[in-house]
Amino acid sequence: MPMTTSLTTLLGIAHPILLAPMDVIAGSRLVAAVSRAGGFGILGGGYGERAWLEQETATLAELREPFGIGFITWSLAKRPELLDIALGAKPSAIMLSFGDPAPFAAKIKSAGARLICQVQDEAMARQALDAGADVLIAQGTEAGGHGASRTTVDLVPAIVDLAAGRVPVVAAGGIADGRGLAAMMMLGASGVLLGTRFYVSREADGAEEAKRRICAANSGSTVRGIIFDLSRNNVWPAPFTGRCLINDHARRWIGREVELMQNVAAVAVDYAAAKAAGNFDVAAVIAGEAVGLIHDIPPAAEIVERIVVEAEQLLEGRRNSVNGAFPSPLVGEGGAKRRMRGISPQT
Amino acid sequence: MPMTTSLTTLLGIAHPILLAPMDVIAGSRLVAAVSRAGGFGILGGGYGERAWLEQETATLAELREPFGIGFITWSLAKRPELLDIALGAKPSAIMLSFGDPAPFAAKIKSAGARLICQVQDEAMARQALDAGADVLIAQGTEAGGHGASRTTVDLVPAIVDLAAGRVPVVAAGGIADGRGLAAMMMLGASGVLLGTRFYVSREADGAEEAKRRICAANSGSTVRGIIFDLSRNNVWPAPFTGRCLINDHARRWIGREVELMQNVAAVAVDYAAAKAAGNFDVAAVIAGEAVGLIHDIPPAAEIVERIVVEAEQLLEGRRNSVNGAFPSPLVGEGGAKRRMRGISPQT
Repeated sequence: MPMTTSLTTLLGIAHPILLAPMDVIAGSRLVAAVSRAGGFGILGGGYGERAWLEQETATLAELREPFGIGFITWSLAKRPELLDIALGAKPSAIMLSFGDPAPFAAKIKSAGARLICQVQDEAMARQALDAGADVLIAQGTEAGGHGASRTTVDLVPAIVDLAAGRVPVVAAGGIADGRGLAAMMMLGASGVLLGTRFYVSREADGAEEAKRRICAANSGSTVRGIIFDLSRNNVWPAPFTGRCLINDHARRWIGREVELMQNVAAVAVDYAAAKAAGNFDVAAVIAGEAVGLIHDIPPAAEIVERIVVEAEQLLEGRRNSVNGAFPSPLVGEGGAKRRMRGISPQT
Repeated sequence: MPMTTSLTTLLGIAHPILLAPMDVIAGSRLVAAVSRAGGFGILGGGYGERAWLEQETATLAELREPFGIGFITWSLAKRPELLDIALGAKPSAIMLSFGDPAPFAAKIKSAGARLICQVQDEAMARQALDAGADVLIAQGTEAGGHGASRTTVDLVPAIVDLAAGRVPVVAAGGIADGRGLAAMMMLGASGVLLGTRFYVSREADGAEEAKRRICAANSGSTVRGIIFDLSRNNVWPAPFTGRCLINDHARRWIGREVELMQNVAAVAVDYAAAKAAGNFDVAAVIAGEAVGLIHDIPPAAEIVERIVVEAEQLLEGRRNSVNGAFPSPLVGEGGAKRRMRGISPQT
């Protein structure tokens, strides 16, 4: 059944599950799959490649379900004309991350789209609200790819309190299952934004080997830092760093960032070659701390369905447990059991 | 009403809320207050001062409600005789953190006490289960004082999955209100362990000025590192570091740890003097990332009551929202409203 929150009402969607606009990974195929499943797909506009954006938005313009388009704000500021291409596809929302959204707000809103702003601390949240953000995404350090240092459990209630009910707050970072969705709703979030979990879906435009590595990774096997950005000559503004799977390249350079910068010309050549060859011992698999919760490569629609079913069961079951009336219905229900290992009748 | 979980059943308590055994702060007065309120007080045995432990355990031996006694495991290994003093007070449980619990497990269990082990990653969790732990505490990096680097949202589901229902898992790190308790139960935890929130209670043996500083602190104003340990010549084994409020001393030395070590004799004299004088611009106020959720200094019983009421309301209200039958009952209920600012009818 639909899981109604202020976010789902605002965006006109069935389930409070958003696709993170992962650069390269979240193409129109994944966006369409998530939106058709009742979530909200957001295209990974990333740094902004014009030809790719034109092609993907042309496909999305045909989509009947609501969807969004995301940009890296500081990068969009260098190519503001890309926003016109995006708005031409009539997205329900534009999502801006990593930079001041103010210069783009008026154009987005006058085109009838909502402004979704991803923030990593209170100052950024205030800046986004001042710019007229309709939704705040509180992104914890657990998230894959670019982000900052505050944790999800710390940041989500802080941004919920700051937003004070004016706009829905969405939680991001470390979430990949129904437990995470239910937990974030308890913290006051109106939904979740998932990156890594949707990366490991059939429709994501990532390399199969990268998806397999995420499936095989345990919790605790990612690292946040600047090594993969340095290695591809990609300079990001502070305080943003990137999280990826720990691989040979990361192990080699962690703690030796200055030395890496001194040798960046040679390193960048090797890194680009490894990336082109799909050698993920060197090239980074960009992923978040939720990797330990991800074990398969299903269709995106199945991911949405699983998360909603698990979250609903948890929220229903817990209430029963609180009342002491009867034990949680979680255990023994075959379909959900495998995903819910470890959850006993009275957890 | 009682909030029954496998943890409350095991420990014979009404509410799944445990007091972190904070060194110096969690004395017998705070332990008794938490246990009398239906939670589970755990004495801060810390590094083990014999005279203090004898005095506090003598008081606790009179307590009718269940309680526990906590130790820093690597420190207890140097003074194992302290465990006999602790067990003499007939605690329901001994909590061991930071080190191998195996050498103490048999004595604890043969005395009829439960073994609670705090862990920071999967390897430690396996070690604790092998030693016969009855409860695992999954401590995220958000926690105040000593801990490690994995976050609460990452670690709790990982340890829940690893425990696979064999023992209750308790979440620690970044939790200070009913939202946190409800969220952690959704992640599969059977309860929460709170440090900083109980530090800022009337019965905690902390300096009033330290409590006031925590009340005034915003989210994001703590830091994890080794500066306060270095400054008091307190060498901890890896991977453990300590979280405290960012003060002048921390700002001065963050990133200059090697220089601090080179000047440690002089720094330690100044640091000890500042600590004796209650100068918290230099001496650390040990606190976790939940400081932003803490604004007052109530009795511990009121803290327990607030958390339980808020968590119950959230768990009840969310179910209603999931069903779509009627909006959450959270908004407009006077008593809880202030604490729940930012939670709209359909969050």
